[in-house]
Amino acid sequence: MKVINDVRDMRRWTERQRLAGRRLALVPTMGYLHEGHLSLIRLARQRADVVVVSIFVNPTQFAPNEDLDRYPRDFERDEALCRQEGVDAVFYPSAQTMYPPHYKTYVITEDLSRVLCGKSRPSHFRGVTTIVAKLFNIVRPHLAVFGQKDAQQLIIIKKMTADLNFDIDIIGAPIVREADGLAMSSRNAYLNKEERQQATVLYKSLQLARREAEQGNRSAKDIKKKMTALIESAPLARIDYVELVDTQTLTAKERIEGETLAAVAVFFGKTRLIDNTVLNL
Amino acid sequence: MKVINDVRDMRRWTERQRLAGRRLALVPTMGYLHEGHLSLIRLARQRADVVVVSIFVNPTQFAPNEDLDRYPRDFERDEALCRQEGVDAVFYPSAQTMYPPHYKTYVITEDLSRVLCGKSRPSHFRGVTTIVAKLFNIVRPHLAVFGQKDAQQLIIIKKMTADLNFDIDIIGAPIVREADGLAMSSRNAYLNKEERQQATVLYKSLQLARREAEQGNRSAKDIKKKMTALIESAPLARIDYVELVDTQTLTAKERIEGETLAAVAVFFGKTRLIDNTVLNL
Repeated sequence: MKVINDVRDMRRWTERQRLAGRRLALVPTMGYLHEGHLSLIRLARQRADVVVVSIFVNPTQFAPNEDLDRYPRDFERDEALCRQEGVDAVFYPSAQTMYPPHYKTYVITEDLSRVLCGKSRPSHFRGVTTIVAKLFNIVRPHLAVFGQKDAQQLIIIKKMTADLNFDIDIIGAPIVREADGLAMSSRNAYLNKEERQQATVLYKSLQLARREAEQGNRSAKDIKKKMTALIESAPLARIDYVELVDTQTLTAKERIEGETLAAVAVFFGKTRLIDNTVLNL
Repeated sequence: MKVINDVRDMRRWTERQRLAGRRLALVPTMGYLHEGHLSLIRLARQRADVVVVSIFVNPTQFAPNEDLDRYPRDFERDEALCRQEGVDAVFYPSAQTMYPPHYKTYVITEDLSRVLCGKSRPSHFRGVTTIVAKLFNIVRPHLAVFGQKDAQQLIIIKKMTADLNFDIDIIGAPIVREADGLAMSSRNAYLNKEERQQATVLYKSLQLARREAEQGNRSAKDIKKKMTALIESAPLARIDYVELVDTQTLTAKERIEGETLAAVAVFFGKTRLIDNTVLNL
Protein backbone atom coordinates (compact mmCIF):
# COMPACT_ATOMS: atom_id res chain seq x y z
CA MET A 1 0.00 0.00 0.00
CA LYS A 2 1.30 3.42 -1.01
CA VAL A 3 0.94 6.43 1.28
CA ILE A 4 1.04 9.59 -0.80
CA ASN A 5 1.22 13.15 0.55
CA ASP A 6 1.91 15.14 -2.58
CA VAL A 7 -0.61 16.17 -5.24
CA ARG A 8 1.76 15.55 -8.12
CA ASP A 9 2.74 12.09 -6.83
CA MET A 10 -0.92 11.18 -6.38
CA ARG A 11 -1.73 12.31 -9.92
CA ARG A 12 1.18 10.32 -11.36
CA TRP A 13 0.20 7.15 -9.48
CA THR A 14 -3.42 7.42 -10.50
CA GLU A 15 -2.57 8.18 -14.14
CA ARG A 16 -0.50 5.00 -14.31
CA GLN A 17 -3.47 2.99 -12.99
CA ARG A 18 -5.77 4.54 -15.57
CA LEU A 19 -3.36 3.88 -18.43
CA ALA A 20 -3.14 0.25 -17.29
CA GLY A 21 -6.90 0.09 -17.85
CA ARG A 22 -7.79 -0.28 -14.18
CA ARG A 23 -11.02 1.04 -12.68
CA LEU A 24 -10.32 3.40 -9.79
CA ALA A 25 -12.46 4.01 -6.71
CA LEU A 26 -12.01 6.87 -4.27
CA VAL A 27 -13.23 6.73 -0.68
CA PRO A 28 -12.89 10.26 0.78
CA THR A 29 -12.65 10.29 4.60
CA MET A 30 -11.57 12.52 7.45
CA GLY A 31 -9.78 9.56 9.04
CA TYR A 32 -10.28 8.06 12.51
CA LEU A 33 -11.74 5.15 10.61
CA HIS A 34 -14.52 2.98 12.02
CA GLU A 35 -16.64 0.11 10.68
CA GLY A 36 -18.69 2.60 8.69
CA HIS A 37 -15.63 3.70 6.71
CA LEU A 38 -14.48 0.10 6.32
CA SER A 39 -17.84 -0.79 4.77
CA LEU A 40 -17.27 2.00 2.21
CA ILE A 41 -13.83 0.60 1.44
CA ARG A 42 -15.23 -2.92 1.00
CA LEU A 43 -17.93 -1.61 -1.33
CA ALA A 44 -15.27 0.25 -3.32
CA ARG A 45 -13.22 -2.97 -3.51
CA GLN A 46 -16.19 -4.79 -5.05
CA ARG A 47 -16.76 -2.14 -7.70
CA ALA A 48 -13.21 -1.24 -8.73
CA ASP A 49 -9.77 -2.70 -9.44
CA VAL A 50 -7.91 -0.13 -7.40
CA VAL A 51 -9.02 1.64 -4.21
CA VAL A 52 -7.71 5.01 -3.03
CA VAL A 53 -8.68 6.23 0.45
CA SER A 54 -8.12 9.91 1.17
CA ILE A 55 -7.59 10.96 4.77
CA PHE A 56 -7.91 14.69 5.29
CA VAL A 57 -9.61 16.63 8.07
CA ASN A 58 -10.88 19.38 5.81
CA PRO A 59 -10.71 22.78 7.53
CA THR A 60 -13.08 24.54 5.11
CA GLN A 61 -16.03 22.42 6.19
CA PHE A 62 -15.66 23.48 9.84
CA ALA A 63 -16.90 26.85 11.07
CA PRO A 64 -14.61 28.79 13.45
CA ASN A 65 -16.74 27.73 16.47
CA GLU A 66 -16.72 24.04 15.50
CA ASP A 67 -14.53 21.06 16.42
CA LEU A 68 -11.72 21.24 13.83
CA ASP A 69 -8.98 21.26 16.45
CA ARG A 70 -10.35 18.52 18.64
CA TYR A 71 -11.59 16.34 15.74
CA PRO A 72 -10.12 12.89 16.50
CA ARG A 73 -7.05 11.84 14.50
CA ASP A 74 -4.98 8.62 14.51
CA PHE A 75 -3.14 8.19 11.24
CA GLU A 76 -1.14 5.13 12.26
CA ARG A 77 -4.28 3.22 13.17
CA ASP A 78 -6.01 4.42 9.97
CA GLU A 79 -3.03 3.30 7.91
CA ALA A 80 -3.05 -0.16 9.50
CA LEU A 81 -6.80 -0.53 8.90
CA CYS A 82 -6.45 0.51 5.25
CA ARG A 83 -3.66 -2.02 4.81
CA GLN A 84 -5.82 -4.75 6.34
CA GLU A 85 -8.65 -3.90 3.95
CA GLY A 86 -6.36 -4.17 0.92
CA VAL A 87 -6.45 -0.48 0.05
CA ASP A 88 -4.00 0.30 -2.77
CA ALA A 89 -3.15 3.90 -1.93
CA VAL A 90 -3.83 6.33 0.89
CA PHE A 91 -3.80 10.00 -0.05
CA TYR A 92 -2.83 11.91 3.09
CA PRO A 93 -2.06 15.54 2.23
CA SER A 94 -1.36 18.41 4.63
CA ALA A 95 -3.76 21.33 5.04
CA GLN A 96 -1.05 23.51 3.50
CA THR A 97 -0.96 21.27 0.42
CA MET A 98 -4.71 21.43 -0.11
CA TYR A 99 -5.14 25.10 0.82
CA PRO A 100 -1.94 27.02 0.11
CA PRO A 101 -1.78 30.71 1.11
CA HIS A 102 -4.11 32.97 -0.91
CA TYR A 103 -6.43 30.07 -1.71
CA LYS A 104 -9.62 31.60 -3.15
CA THR A 105 -11.79 29.13 -5.08
CA TYR A 106 -14.94 27.43 -3.78
CA VAL A 107 -17.60 25.17 -5.26
CA ILE A 108 -21.14 25.89 -4.09
CA THR A 109 -24.36 23.98 -4.64
CA GLU A 110 -27.21 26.38 -4.01
CA ASP A 111 -30.45 25.69 -2.09
CA LEU A 112 -29.59 22.08 -1.12
CA SER A 113 -26.80 23.34 1.14
CA ARG A 114 -28.99 25.84 3.01
CA VAL A 115 -31.44 23.41 4.64
CA LEU A 116 -31.09 20.72 7.37
CA CYS A 117 -27.43 20.68 8.49
CA GLY A 118 -26.81 23.77 6.34
CA LYS A 119 -29.01 25.85 8.67
CA SER A 120 -26.78 25.45 11.71
CA ARG A 121 -23.62 24.99 9.58
CA PRO A 122 -23.99 27.63 6.81
CA SER A 123 -20.52 27.23 5.25
CA HIS A 124 -20.20 23.46 5.84
CA PHE A 125 -21.31 22.12 2.45
CA ARG A 126 -19.32 24.73 0.55
CA GLY A 127 -16.27 23.22 2.24
CA VAL A 128 -17.43 19.70 1.39
CA THR A 129 -18.12 20.35 -2.30
CA THR A 130 -14.85 22.25 -2.63
CA ILE A 131 -12.65 19.54 -1.13
CA VAL A 132 -14.48 16.79 -3.04
CA ALA A 133 -14.03 18.65 -6.34
CA LYS A 134 -10.32 19.02 -5.55
CA LEU A 135 -9.97 15.32 -4.64
CA PHE A 136 -11.82 14.36 -7.81
CA ASN A 137 -9.34 16.39 -9.88
CA ILE A 138 -6.32 14.98 -8.08
CA VAL A 139 -7.33 11.30 -7.92
CA ARG A 140 -9.52 11.21 -11.05
CA PRO A 141 -11.47 8.12 -9.93
CA HIS A 142 -14.10 6.31 -12.00
CA LEU A 143 -16.29 6.06 -8.93
CA ALA A 144 -16.43 7.46 -5.41
CA VAL A 145 -18.15 6.01 -2.36
CA PHE A 146 -19.85 8.11 0.33
CA GLY A 147 -21.83 7.00 3.37
CA GLN A 148 -25.61 7.36 3.46
CA LYS A 149 -25.10 8.48 7.09
CA ASP A 150 -24.34 11.94 5.71
CA ALA A 151 -27.48 11.86 3.55
CA GLN A 152 -27.52 15.55 2.69
CA GLN A 153 -23.82 15.45 1.80
CA LEU A 154 -24.43 12.48 -0.51
CA ILE A 155 -27.32 14.27 -2.27
CA ILE A 156 -25.28 17.47 -2.66
CA ILE A 157 -22.24 15.61 -3.99
CA LYS A 158 -24.38 13.75 -6.54
CA LYS A 159 -25.80 17.10 -7.67
CA MET A 160 -22.38 18.79 -7.80
CA THR A 161 -20.91 15.87 -9.76
CA ALA A 162 -23.70 16.00 -12.34
CA ASP A 163 -23.78 19.81 -12.57
CA LEU A 164 -20.02 20.20 -13.07
CA ASN A 165 -19.88 17.23 -15.49
CA PHE A 166 -17.46 15.14 -13.46
CA ASP A 167 -17.34 11.74 -15.18
CA ILE A 168 -17.57 9.88 -11.86
CA ASP A 169 -20.18 7.46 -10.46
CA ILE A 170 -21.24 8.45 -6.95
CA ILE A 171 -22.19 5.46 -4.82
CA GLY A 172 -24.01 5.69 -1.50
CA ALA A 173 -23.24 3.02 1.11
CA PRO A 174 -25.72 1.95 3.82
CA ILE A 175 -25.39 3.26 7.38
CA VAL A 176 -23.45 0.97 9.73
CA ARG A 177 -24.76 0.92 13.30
CA GLU A 178 -23.58 -0.14 16.74
CA ALA A 179 -25.42 -3.07 18.35
CA ASP A 180 -27.88 -0.66 20.02
CA GLY A 181 -28.61 1.20 16.78
CA LEU A 182 -26.37 4.28 17.15
CA ALA A 183 -24.98 5.20 13.73
CA MET A 184 -21.19 4.87 13.61
CA SER A 185 -19.40 8.22 13.61
CA SER A 186 -15.94 9.44 14.50
CA ARG A 187 -17.69 12.01 16.70
CA ASN A 188 -19.15 9.24 18.91
CA ALA A 189 -15.70 9.26 20.55
CA TYR A 190 -16.63 12.61 22.14
CA LEU A 191 -19.57 11.16 24.11
CA ASN A 192 -19.30 10.39 27.81
CA LYS A 193 -21.01 7.28 29.18
CA GLU A 194 -24.37 8.89 29.90
CA GLU A 195 -24.47 10.75 26.59
CA ARG A 196 -23.52 7.55 24.76
CA GLN A 197 -26.42 5.69 26.38
CA GLN A 198 -28.95 8.40 25.59
CA ALA A 199 -27.65 8.86 22.03
CA THR A 200 -29.71 5.87 20.92
CA VAL A 201 -32.74 8.22 20.79
CA LEU A 202 -31.69 9.35 17.31
CA TYR A 203 -32.13 5.91 15.80
CA LYS A 204 -35.19 5.19 17.96
CA SER A 205 -36.87 8.34 16.61
CA LEU A 206 -36.21 7.16 13.04
CA GLN A 207 -37.64 3.72 13.83
CA LEU A 208 -40.68 5.44 15.27
CA ALA A 209 -41.09 7.47 12.06
CA ARG A 210 -40.87 4.29 10.02
CA ARG A 211 -43.43 2.51 12.19
CA GLU A 212 -45.83 5.44 12.05
CA ALA A 213 -45.51 5.75 8.26
CA GLU A 214 -45.93 2.01 7.76
CA GLN A 215 -49.04 2.05 9.92
CA GLY A 216 -50.55 4.65 7.62
CA ASN A 217 -49.75 7.92 9.36
CA ARG A 218 -49.29 10.43 6.50
CA SER A 219 -48.98 13.61 8.55
CA ALA A 220 -45.40 14.91 8.65
CA LYS A 221 -46.40 17.32 11.40
CA ASP A 222 -47.74 14.54 13.62
CA ILE A 223 -44.78 12.20 13.02
CA LYS A 224 -42.27 14.99 13.69
CA LYS A 225 -44.10 15.80 16.94
CA LYS A 226 -43.82 12.18 18.08
CA MET A 227 -40.13 11.96 17.06
CA THR A 228 -39.40 15.20 18.91
CA ALA A 229 -41.10 13.94 22.07
CA LEU A 230 -39.13 10.72 21.95
CA ILE A 231 -35.78 12.53 21.53
CA GLU A 232 -36.67 14.99 24.29
CA SER A 233 -37.29 12.06 26.64
CA ALA A 234 -33.46 11.87 26.80
CA PRO A 235 -32.52 14.54 29.37
CA LEU A 236 -29.12 15.33 27.78
CA ALA A 237 -30.46 15.65 24.21
CA ARG A 238 -30.82 19.10 22.59
CA ILE A 239 -32.50 18.95 19.19
CA ASP A 240 -30.95 20.82 16.23
CA TYR A 241 -33.58 19.57 13.76
CA VAL A 242 -36.12 16.82 13.11
CA GLU A 243 -37.17 16.88 9.47
CA LEU A 244 -39.13 14.89 6.88
CA VAL A 245 -38.05 16.04 3.44
CA ASP A 246 -38.09 15.11 -0.23
CA THR A 247 -35.03 12.97 -1.04
CA GLN A 248 -34.23 14.98 -4.20
CA THR A 249 -34.99 18.59 -3.33
CA LEU A 250 -34.65 18.35 0.48
CA THR A 251 -37.78 20.52 0.82
CA ALA A 252 -40.09 19.79 3.77
CA LYS A 253 -42.98 17.41 3.15
CA GLU A 254 -46.46 17.82 4.58
CA ARG A 255 -47.76 14.41 3.52
CA ILE A 256 -45.57 11.32 3.78
CA GLU A 257 -45.73 9.89 0.25
CA GLY A 258 -43.12 8.52 -2.16
CA GLU A 259 -39.51 8.75 -1.01
CA THR A 260 -39.10 10.69 2.20
CA LEU A 261 -35.86 11.35 4.04
CA ALA A 262 -36.36 11.33 7.80
CA ALA A 263 -33.35 13.17 9.22
CA VAL A 264 -32.38 14.24 12.73
CA ALA A 265 -29.54 16.24 14.27
CA VAL A 266 -29.16 16.27 18.04
CA PHE A 267 -26.58 17.81 20.36
CA PHE A 268 -25.27 15.99 23.40
CA GLY A 269 -23.20 18.61 25.16
CA LYS A 270 -20.98 20.07 22.44
CA THR A 271 -21.23 16.93 20.32
CA ARG A 272 -23.59 17.10 17.37
CA LEU A 273 -24.85 13.76 16.06
CA ILE A 274 -26.84 13.13 12.89
CA ASP A 275 -28.80 10.15 11.59
CA ASN A 276 -31.38 9.45 8.91
CA THR A 277 -33.46 6.87 7.13
CA VAL A 278 -35.34 6.81 3.83
CA LEU A 279 -39.06 6.01 4.07
CA ASN A 280 -40.21 4.49 0.80
CA LEU A 281 -44.01 4.38 0.57
CA MET B 1 -13.51 18.17 -38.34
CA LYS B 2 -16.11 16.83 -35.91
CA VAL B 3 -18.95 19.00 -34.62
CA ILE B 4 -20.15 17.60 -31.31
CA ASN B 5 -23.23 18.76 -29.41
CA ASP B 6 -23.54 16.12 -26.73
CA VAL B 7 -21.50 15.89 -23.50
CA ARG B 8 -21.16 12.11 -23.67
CA ASP B 9 -20.04 12.18 -27.32
CA MET B 10 -17.48 14.87 -26.53
CA ARG B 11 -16.13 12.85 -23.59
CA ARG B 12 -15.86 9.70 -25.72
CA TRP B 13 -14.03 11.52 -28.54
CA THR B 14 -11.62 13.19 -26.16
CA GLU B 15 -10.95 9.98 -24.23
CA ARG B 16 -9.98 8.25 -27.49
CA GLN B 17 -7.50 11.05 -28.24
CA ARG B 18 -5.97 10.77 -24.76
CA LEU B 19 -5.66 7.00 -24.98
CA ALA B 20 -3.90 7.43 -28.32
CA GLY B 21 -1.31 9.51 -26.44
CA ARG B 22 -2.24 12.79 -28.07
CA ARG B 23 -1.90 16.14 -26.33
CA LEU B 24 -5.20 18.02 -26.31
CA ALA B 25 -5.77 21.77 -26.38
CA LEU B 26 -9.07 23.48 -25.64
CA VAL B 27 -9.93 26.97 -26.91
CA PRO B 28 -13.13 28.08 -25.16
CA THR B 29 -15.04 30.76 -27.10
CA MET B 30 -18.49 32.32 -27.31
CA GLY B 31 -18.29 32.11 -31.11
CA TYR B 32 -18.58 34.92 -33.68
CA LEU B 33 -14.91 34.28 -34.24
CA HIS B 34 -12.49 37.01 -35.26
CA GLU B 35 -8.72 37.21 -35.79
CA GLY B 36 -8.24 37.27 -32.00
CA HIS B 37 -9.87 33.85 -31.65
CA LEU B 38 -7.97 32.53 -34.67
CA SER B 39 -4.70 33.55 -33.02
CA LEU B 40 -5.70 31.46 -29.97
CA ILE B 41 -6.44 28.49 -32.23
CA ARG B 42 -3.08 28.85 -33.98
CA LEU B 43 -1.28 29.00 -30.63
CA ALA B 44 -3.17 25.88 -29.50
CA ARG B 45 -2.13 24.14 -32.76
CA GLN B 46 1.53 24.84 -31.99
CA ARG B 47 1.30 23.44 -28.48
CA ALA B 48 -0.91 20.37 -28.94
CA ASP B 49 -1.64 17.45 -31.26
CA VAL B 50 -5.38 17.94 -31.20
CA VAL B 51 -7.38 21.18 -30.92
CA VAL B 52 -10.94 21.43 -29.60
CA VAL B 53 -12.78 24.74 -29.93
CA SER B 54 -15.89 25.18 -27.80
CA ILE B 55 -18.54 27.59 -29.02
CA PHE B 56 -21.07 28.45 -26.35
CA VAL B 57 -22.66 31.78 -25.47
CA ASN B 58 -22.69 31.14 -21.74
CA PRO B 59 -25.84 32.57 -20.13
CA THR B 60 -24.50 32.48 -16.54
CA GLN B 61 -21.85 35.09 -17.29
CA PHE B 62 -24.45 37.63 -18.44
CA ALA B 63 -26.54 39.64 -15.96
CA PRO B 64 -30.27 40.00 -16.75
CA ASN B 65 -29.71 43.57 -18.02
CA GLU B 66 -26.82 42.59 -20.29
CA ASP B 67 -26.54 41.60 -23.96
CA LEU B 68 -27.12 37.81 -23.87
CA ASP B 69 -29.96 37.96 -26.40
CA ARG B 70 -28.33 40.30 -28.87
CA TYR B 71 -24.83 38.81 -28.50
CA PRO B 72 -23.74 38.16 -32.11
CA ARG B 73 -23.92 34.54 -33.34
CA ASP B 74 -22.99 32.94 -36.68
CA PHE B 75 -22.29 29.26 -36.27
CA GLU B 76 -21.90 28.46 -39.98
CA ARG B 77 -19.22 31.07 -40.39
CA ASP B 78 -17.51 29.93 -37.13
CA GLU B 79 -17.56 26.34 -38.34
CA ALA B 80 -15.99 27.28 -41.66
CA LEU B 81 -13.26 29.29 -39.92
CA CYS B 82 -12.48 26.42 -37.54
CA ARG B 83 -12.24 24.05 -40.50
CA GLN B 84 -9.85 26.43 -42.28
CA GLU B 85 -7.67 26.59 -39.16
CA GLY B 86 -7.41 22.80 -38.97
CA VAL B 87 -9.44 22.48 -35.74
CA ASP B 88 -10.09 18.81 -34.93
CA ALA B 89 -13.38 19.12 -33.07
CA VAL B 90 -15.89 21.87 -32.31
CA PHE B 91 -17.92 21.42 -29.13
CA TYR B 92 -21.21 23.24 -29.69
CA PRO B 93 -23.68 22.35 -26.93
CA SER B 94 -27.10 23.88 -26.29
CA ALA B 95 -27.82 26.00 -23.20
CA GLN B 96 -30.15 23.19 -22.08
CA THR B 97 -27.29 20.68 -22.30
CA MET B 98 -24.96 22.79 -20.20
CA TYR B 99 -27.56 24.05 -17.72
CA PRO B 100 -30.41 21.55 -17.42
CA PRO B 101 -33.43 22.43 -15.23
CA HIS B 102 -32.63 22.64 -11.50
CA TYR B 103 -28.97 23.36 -12.20
CA LYS B 104 -27.45 24.53 -8.89
CA THR B 105 -23.63 24.37 -8.78
CA TYR B 106 -21.25 27.30 -9.23
CA VAL B 107 -17.51 27.81 -8.97
CA ILE B 108 -16.44 31.08 -7.37
CA THR B 109 -13.02 32.68 -7.03
CA GLU B 110 -13.22 35.21 -4.24
CA ASP B 111 -11.75 38.76 -4.19
CA LEU B 112 -10.30 38.62 -7.73
CA SER B 113 -13.81 38.54 -9.19
CA ARG B 114 -15.06 41.58 -7.22
CA VAL B 115 -12.74 44.23 -8.68
CA LEU B 116 -12.40 45.83 -12.16
CA CYS B 117 -15.05 44.24 -14.44
CA GLY B 118 -16.49 42.45 -11.39
CA LYS B 119 -17.66 45.78 -9.95
CA SER B 120 -20.08 46.55 -12.74
CA ARG B 121 -20.65 42.83 -13.52
CA PRO B 122 -20.91 41.20 -10.05
CA SER B 123 -21.99 37.71 -11.21
CA HIS B 124 -19.93 37.68 -14.41
CA PHE B 125 -16.82 35.79 -13.26
CA ARG B 126 -18.86 33.26 -11.32
CA GLY B 127 -20.43 32.36 -14.67
CA VAL B 128 -17.02 32.25 -16.35
CA THR B 129 -15.34 30.01 -13.75
CA THR B 130 -18.38 27.73 -13.68
CA ILE B 131 -18.56 27.17 -17.45
CA VAL B 132 -14.78 26.78 -17.72
CA ALA B 133 -14.77 24.15 -14.94
CA LYS B 134 -17.56 22.31 -16.77
CA LEU B 135 -15.72 22.48 -20.11
CA PHE B 136 -12.52 21.28 -18.44
CA ASN B 137 -14.39 18.24 -17.07
CA ILE B 138 -16.06 17.47 -20.39
CA VAL B 139 -13.10 17.99 -22.74
CA ARG B 140 -10.31 17.11 -20.28
CA PRO B 141 -7.62 19.03 -22.20
CA HIS B 142 -3.91 19.09 -21.34
CA LEU B 143 -3.88 22.82 -22.00
CA ALA B 144 -6.35 25.62 -22.61
CA VAL B 145 -5.78 28.93 -24.36
CA PHE B 146 -7.41 32.22 -23.33
CA GLY B 147 -6.90 35.72 -24.70
CA GLN B 148 -4.94 38.32 -22.74
CA LYS B 149 -7.65 40.76 -23.91
CA ASP B 150 -9.77 39.49 -21.01
CA ALA B 151 -6.88 39.95 -18.59
CA GLN B 152 -8.91 39.61 -15.41
CA GLN B 153 -10.62 36.47 -16.76
CA LEU B 154 -7.21 34.96 -17.56
CA ILE B 155 -5.90 35.69 -14.05
CA ILE B 156 -9.05 34.28 -12.41
CA ILE B 157 -8.99 31.13 -14.56
CA LYS B 158 -5.34 30.52 -13.71
CA LYS B 159 -6.21 30.87 -10.03
CA MET B 160 -9.28 28.62 -10.28
CA THR B 161 -7.30 25.98 -12.18
CA ALA B 162 -4.55 25.93 -9.55
CA ASP B 163 -6.93 26.09 -6.57
CA LEU B 164 -9.18 23.25 -7.77
CA ASN B 165 -6.18 21.15 -8.86
CA PHE B 166 -7.13 20.88 -12.52
CA ASP B 167 -4.16 19.27 -14.27
CA ILE B 168 -4.31 21.76 -17.15
CA ASP B 169 -1.82 24.35 -18.42
CA ILE B 170 -3.45 27.75 -18.91
CA ILE B 171 -1.90 29.74 -21.72
CA GLY B 172 -2.52 33.43 -22.33
CA ALA B 173 -2.36 34.67 -25.91
CA PRO B 174 -1.44 38.26 -26.88
CA ILE B 175 -4.14 40.79 -27.77
CA VAL B 176 -4.85 41.08 -31.51
CA ARG B 177 -5.67 44.61 -32.67
CA GLU B 178 -7.23 46.30 -35.68
CA ALA B 179 -4.92 48.52 -37.79
CA ASP B 180 -5.87 51.56 -35.68
CA GLY B 181 -5.18 49.77 -32.38
CA LEU B 182 -8.72 48.79 -31.31
CA ALA B 183 -8.57 45.38 -29.60
CA MET B 184 -10.53 42.75 -31.54
CA SER B 185 -13.81 41.80 -29.87
CA SER B 186 -17.08 40.28 -31.01
CA ARG B 187 -18.76 43.26 -29.36
CA ASN B 188 -17.08 45.67 -31.82
CA ALA B 189 -19.87 44.60 -34.18
CA TYR B 190 -22.29 46.65 -32.04
CA LEU B 191 -20.51 49.95 -32.72
CA ASN B 192 -21.83 52.50 -35.23
CA LYS B 193 -19.38 54.39 -37.40
CA GLU B 194 -18.81 57.29 -34.99
CA GLU B 195 -18.47 55.02 -31.95
CA ARG B 196 -16.05 52.82 -33.89
CA GLN B 197 -13.86 55.82 -34.71
CA GLN B 198 -13.83 57.10 -31.14
CA ALA B 199 -13.25 53.60 -29.66
CA THR B 200 -9.55 53.93 -30.39
CA VAL B 201 -9.26 56.02 -27.21
CA LEU B 202 -9.03 52.81 -25.15
CA TYR B 203 -5.79 51.75 -26.78
CA LYS B 204 -4.51 55.33 -26.93
CA SER B 205 -4.99 55.66 -23.17
CA LEU B 206 -2.95 52.47 -22.62
CA GLN B 207 -0.18 53.74 -24.90
CA LEU B 208 -0.20 56.97 -22.91
CA ALA B 209 0.15 55.00 -19.66
CA ARG B 210 3.11 53.11 -21.12
CA ARG B 211 4.78 56.28 -22.32
CA GLU B 212 4.31 57.98 -18.95
CA ALA B 213 5.66 54.98 -17.05
CA GLU B 214 8.62 54.60 -19.40
CA GLN B 215 9.43 58.28 -18.98
CA GLY B 216 9.64 57.78 -15.24
CA ASN B 217 6.18 58.75 -14.00
CA ARG B 218 5.56 56.49 -10.98
CA SER B 219 2.32 58.05 -9.76
CA ALA B 220 -0.69 55.84 -10.49
CA LYS B 221 -2.97 58.75 -9.57
CA ASP B 222 -1.36 61.08 -12.10
CA ILE B 223 -1.25 58.50 -14.89
CA LYS B 224 -4.90 57.55 -14.32
CA LYS B 225 -5.85 61.23 -14.44
CA LYS B 226 -4.13 61.62 -17.81
CA MET B 227 -5.69 58.40 -19.18
CA THR B 228 -9.12 59.54 -18.02
CA ALA B 229 -8.72 62.94 -19.69
CA LEU B 230 -7.68 61.29 -22.93
CA ILE B 231 -10.67 58.91 -22.94
CA GLU B 232 -13.05 61.73 -22.03
CA SER B 233 -11.83 63.66 -25.07
CA ALA B 234 -14.03 61.25 -27.06
CA PRO B 235 -17.54 62.73 -26.74
CA LEU B 236 -19.33 59.34 -26.97
CA ALA B 237 -17.12 57.59 -24.37
CA ARG B 238 -18.46 56.90 -20.87
CA ILE B 239 -15.81 55.46 -18.54
CA ASP B 240 -16.60 52.37 -16.45
CA TYR B 241 -13.11 52.16 -14.97
CA VAL B 242 -9.48 53.17 -15.53
CA GLU B 243 -7.22 51.14 -13.23
CA LEU B 244 -3.57 50.38 -12.55
CA VAL B 245 -3.39 47.17 -10.51
CA ASP B 246 -1.07 44.40 -9.41
CA THR B 247 -1.09 41.60 -12.04
CA GLN B 248 -1.45 38.86 -9.39
CA THR B 249 -3.79 40.28 -6.76
CA LEU B 250 -5.58 42.88 -8.93
CA THR B 251 -5.33 45.36 -6.06
CA ALA B 252 -4.84 49.04 -6.95
CA LYS B 253 -1.26 50.32 -7.07
CA GLU B 254 -0.13 53.73 -5.88
CA ARG B 255 3.39 53.56 -7.27
CA ILE B 256 4.04 52.07 -10.72
CA GLU B 257 6.69 49.44 -9.99
CA GLY B 258 7.18 45.82 -11.05
CA GLU B 259 4.36 44.28 -13.10
CA THR B 260 1.36 46.56 -13.40
CA LEU B 261 -1.84 45.82 -15.30
CA ALA B 262 -3.25 48.96 -16.90
CA ALA B 263 -6.90 48.16 -17.62
CA VAL B 264 -9.79 50.21 -18.98
CA ALA B 265 -13.50 49.63 -19.56
CA VAL B 266 -15.47 52.17 -21.54
CA PHE B 267 -19.07 52.32 -22.72
CA PHE B 268 -20.04 53.57 -26.16
CA GLY B 269 -23.81 53.71 -26.01
CA LYS B 270 -24.82 50.31 -24.64
CA THR B 271 -21.61 48.67 -25.82
CA ARG B 272 -18.98 48.07 -23.16
CA LEU B 273 -15.41 47.66 -24.44
CA ILE B 274 -12.36 46.59 -22.44
CA ASP B 275 -8.66 46.71 -23.12
CA ASN B 276 -5.43 46.37 -21.15
CA THR B 277 -1.68 46.22 -21.25
CA VAL B 278 0.97 45.01 -18.82
CA LEU B 279 3.59 47.59 -17.80
CA ASN B 280 6.78 45.80 -16.80
CA LEU B 281 9.20 48.14 -15.06
